[in-house]
Amino acid sequence: MPPTSLPSSSGSFSSLAALRAACLALPEPDTAVQQQIALREAELTKPAGSLGRLEDLTQWLGRWQKRALPRLEQVQVLIFAGNHGVVQQGVSPWPQTVTAQMVQNFEQGGAAINQLATVAGAILRVVPVQHLTATADFTMAPAMTEEAFLEAVQTGFNAVPRKCDLLCVGEMGIGNTTAAAALAAGLFGGSGSEWAGRGTGLDASGVAHKARVIDAALAHHKADMTTNGTPPQFDALEVARRLGGYELAALLGATLAARHFGIPVLLDGFVCTAAVAPLARLMAGAQRASASGGLDHTRLSHCSAEAGHARLAAQLELAPLLDLGLRLGEASGAALAVPLLRAAVACHAGMATFAQAAVSGRA
Amino acid sequence: MPPTSLPSSSGSFSSLAALRAACLALPEPDTAVQQQIALREAELTKPAGSLGRLEDLTQWLGRWQKRALPRLEQVQVLIFAGNHGVVQQGVSPWPQTVTAQMVQNFEQGGAAINQLATVAGAILRVVPVQHLTATADFTMAPAMTEEAFLEAVQTGFNAVPRKCDLLCVGEMGIGNTTAAAALAAGLFGGSGSEWAGRGTGLDASGVAHKARVIDAALAHHKADMTTNGTPPQFDALEVARRLGGYELAALLGATLAARHFGIPVLLDGFVCTAAVAPLARLMAGAQRASASGGLDHTRLSHCSAEAGHARLAAQLELAPLLDLGLRLGEASGAALAVPLLRAAVACHAGMATFAQAAVSGRA
Repeated sequence: MPPTSLPSSSGSFSSLAALRAACLALPEPDTAVQQQIALREAELTKPAGSLGRLEDLTQWLGRWQKRALPRLEQVQVLIFAGNHGVVQQGVSPWPQTVTAQMVQNFEQGGAAINQLATVAGAILRVVPVQHLTATADFTMAPAMTEEAFLEAVQTGFNAVPRKCDLLCVGEMGIGNTTAAAALAAGLFGGSGSEWAGRGTGLDASGVAHKARVIDAALAHHKADMTTNGTPPQFDALEVARRLGGYELAALLGATLAARHFGIPVLLDGFVCTAAVAPLARLMAGAQRASASGGLDHTRLSHCSAEAGHARLAAQLELAPLLDLGLRLGEASGAALAVPLLRAAVACHAGMATFAQAAVSGRA
Repeated sequence: MPPTSLPSSSGSFSSLAALRAACLALPEPDTAVQQQIALREAELTKPAGSLGRLEDLTQWLGRWQKRALPRLEQVQVLIFAGNHGVVQQGVSPWPQTVTAQMVQNFEQGGAAINQLATVAGAILRVVPVQHLTATADFTMAPAMTEEAFLEAVQTGFNAVPRKCDLLCVGEMGIGNTTAAAALAAGLFGGSGSEWAGRGTGLDASGVAHKARVIDAALAHHKADMTTNGTPPQFDALEVARRLGGYELAALLGATLAARHFGIPVLLDGFVCTAAVAPLARLMAGAQRASASGGLDHTRLSHCSAEAGHARLAAQLELAPLLDLGLRLGEASGAALAVPLLRAAVACHAGMATFAQAAVSGRA
């Protein structure tokens, strides 16, 4: 059963404190199932460990699904779309209208993710968050009110189907690599120039401008990113409310829901990783980091070409499965990695043991 | 039409010189088709270049298939199996009988590659080369006679179906990482310790012994790895005959056939890469390296955990698509990469253009 800090399906997180409690009361995986998987893996007709990270993926799926033979029948891709007030600072070469146009493109089947979801054998759903209303320009004000932030988290939480073997999460939102970079800087330190990248295609002077915009936002919010208390504490959720965005908040909610429902998650690129980083940061800040951590139910599908992603992945100790220079978002990397998981599961379930195949062991 | 140096379907390469001629008369890709693909790619609803290496893969498939919309309907996995006299030097912890046992396991559907081929939507065929007769121990004699080497190359050449959209090549052979390491050292220099790895599971002292065995082989053949001529020339095929193995020779033949038939090839791991390296080395040695090179019709599916693979890939300027710590062989990495190609092709063929989707361009 989910802890009482979780909202009912019709309710919502009533406060940042309630959300924080849900982020800290995270279920742990099933280590007995994991042990069962490891025992079978050792009997399969291959040298020990020779399937490399595929073997880890099987154990990971199994311990979160609580199934000794993990399955991937229901794979759900969720894309959250949102708009950003900070685009008025000139941080993207694309007009804000493209967010809504791309939502329509997703719905009509014309985007990259539609094709990738088909190859992955996954169902795609697109969720425009807060009706694509833009956040406030966070160089001047918090991106979101507390109420709207909690609503957006809730939207993401509610979008996750309970019956789901794997969740792939992604996003669309003109300007959102600026929000992701600001959020990463707010959570892990460093200036705008350490986190800003080319996004959808800025040139060098555009990236420099973006870095200055991020620095302005960090300066504006610096004093307010701690909780009221004695002593005051750094608050990852307050950073997300001030420097994030609606689709980032929804990504956080969806990833939190998946943890509570026992659903493994494939993260996509830079924006997605920044959006869920508070889950890790909260656990670490609360000195309650366990072996499984706040993001153990996730795997990072790929390392994006966006400049800050490798740095952020390293901070979170997430090892990407793919590194193919993608920088598209919209869950493209997550969907691309699904066949790796299908391969891992197929090997584990379908291979013969040494005894079954009458293959000799080591001399 | 294939050049006259190619054998007829019922014939065989009559000499090393005839094989060398076929290795040097390599067809070039269709650059006009590639240009067509690049033009369409630029119109699809995504920022330019945002699909990263998937965009390269589409162009690569198209220019070798000579199709502006590349297809992957007929994907063939070929595994060549062979045995090695050098195992009498104690270079593998597994008995030689495992080669035949694993061939049977492939045929009964119980190996990793059977499951991976299914996930990849590929047809699998296993070819035992020279009836799994072991080569000579190459620390004492050439691994193969010229006649047997040419027969093995021919076996590989003939195994490639003419109607095939993509070929995945791999191998099975107890002891063959020793042959691959010796072959790599013979082609690119360096001692045994620079190329020897753990193979199917040697410990540190086992790897050190394997390196000494390779050094002994290199010393034995050093004076004879050049052609008779004035001046004598280094001969990559003679290196392959002396230090390789039957399944490695077949891999060379299959990859050569694919080039002549316009079939793109996914290479597997260390053994596979070493086996086809003579194609690159011959072109470079003949100073006839073109933009497409001897291995441009191939892509390296993955970087193996086997120690020498990253070094060999760098020598050949092959950038692996995956890096997941696999070290199994049997075309496992190649099959695992097939969905990446399916994803690339699906995006290129299925995405809407900016005009079709009414998505705005850059501001």
